[in-house]
Amino acid sequence: MTFDNIRIVLVNTSHPGNIGGVARAMKNMGLSRLVLVEPRQYPDEQATWRAAGALDVLEQAVVCSTLDEAIADCQFVVGTSARERRIPWPLLDPRRCAEEVASRAGQEQVALLFGREDRGLTNEELQRCNLHLNIPSDPNYSSLNLAMAVQIVCYELRMLQLGGGLPAQAEAQWDAPFSTGDNMERFYEHLEETLIGIGFLDPVAPRQLMTRLRRLYSRLRLDEMELNILRGILTETQKYIPKPARPPQDGSQEG
Amino acid sequence: MTFDNIRIVLVNTSHPGNIGGVARAMKNMGLSRLVLVEPRQYPDEQATWRAAGALDVLEQAVVCSTLDEAIADCQFVVGTSARERRIPWPLLDPRRCAEEVASRAGQEQVALLFGREDRGLTNEELQRCNLHLNIPSDPNYSSLNLAMAVQIVCYELRMLQLGGGLPAQAEAQWDAPFSTGDNMERFYEHLEETLIGIGFLDPVAPRQLMTRLRRLYSRLRLDEMELNILRGILTETQKYIPKPARPPQDGSQEG
Repeated sequence: MTFDNIRIVLVNTSHPGNIGGVARAMKNMGLSRLVLVEPRQYPDEQATWRAAGALDVLEQAVVCSTLDEAIADCQFVVGTSARERRIPWPLLDPRRCAEEVASRAGQEQVALLFGREDRGLTNEELQRCNLHLNIPSDPNYSSLNLAMAVQIVCYELRMLQLGGGLPAQAEAQWDAPFSTGDNMERFYEHLEETLIGIGFLDPVAPRQLMTRLRRLYSRLRLDEMELNILRGILTETQKYIPKPARPPQDGSQEG
Repeated sequence: MTFDNIRIVLVNTSHPGNIGGVARAMKNMGLSRLVLVEPRQYPDEQATWRAAGALDVLEQAVVCSTLDEAIADCQFVVGTSARERRIPWPLLDPRRCAEEVASRAGQEQVALLFGREDRGLTNEELQRCNLHLNIPSDPNYSSLNLAMAVQIVCYELRMLQLGGGLPAQAEAQWDAPFSTGDNMERFYEHLEETLIGIGFLDPVAPRQLMTRLRRLYSRLRLDEMELNILRGILTETQKYIPKPARPPQDGSQEG
């Protein structure tokens, strides 16, 4: 999914700091097209300050005097909305909304509208939308900061773009290969031998000790380097185990 | 899932505004336990102002002088981290992390650690964690505002708590039952009849008109009230259609 066809539209924003916060939130998630409809106070140093490293998003922002102008060329328009509206509209959470947007943003121009800090979007503005988006906040305190709302929506777009793929990625970046079952078995043998050697494990009455240790290590997914470390510890430990008394070598007892 | 056993821990925060932003982000998503480890400037009116309606979260926040104190009774600790660490740690995105946290927060005390605005958590602090959490931001500009990071993580917890259930909910709250297939068919007949009546549809050469209209309306999932409105329009329209000349009723032509 590319974000080239997706624009974030802020309608009639009061606080310039929020505009800067939105620019930063967008850029953090890889979005760059910001449109401002009739901002109350802009440009403003508060916007610049809150944008931090996303000044380029702010500088490229398009300022419009009407919503019509902002979405004139859009085929798909989404408006953020509180849950209760007199006339219910198709209403999705940010995750389902990201899926809808992704399915269209390949060929169509998509706008995501965010309303005023105090009153959101008007009913008239919401009726311009194909879809309404609701962030499922706690009903006891549901009013999100504007930039926070944009952050969540852009985050869901980014998660979708990544295919929710961080865990796999994180493993791909692991610095050593994960251990094989074979090597794990050799480790368990080495461990058992060592535990018997140090007298911690009684081979006559082993109880569940090895089972518990297997359960512990198998939850970890050890990598080869870690396994080598553990085996190194076992080898070192074994050096301290007194050797069993060797049978005399001169054969005198047989005599 | 209950959030009672989950605490958000901010380590060594510089800007008091961020502490307020975090309190608001938490309360928006239904969380309330905030712990501050050695905040640089707190209490502060910037924190109060940014907390907005979440002043209660701020007032109940616990201030500690060490991280040890903050997580002393925790069985599970998660630390937010940038992607590249010298020693890779189990690293999850916020969604997988929420699942991990949810699976534990029933019986265990869980802490989610967020580091300094400029440097995050130290390696030593990260090594206190069972799990590392990474927000998959754009590598070109990956530094999220602190309160934004907390917002995303709390949002994922809330989504999980809801079972990702907004669309079903939204439908449950719909104000009229959705139309049945039967009623849709009657509507299409009514529509076709009307379109023929007004001469828009030529029954001899209908082309794909009705197919296109069916495709249009079937994508909508109309409810019964909407259907009644549409049919009302058709009925009204039909009143304007001149009746076909009726055959004379006196039977003279048969004569």
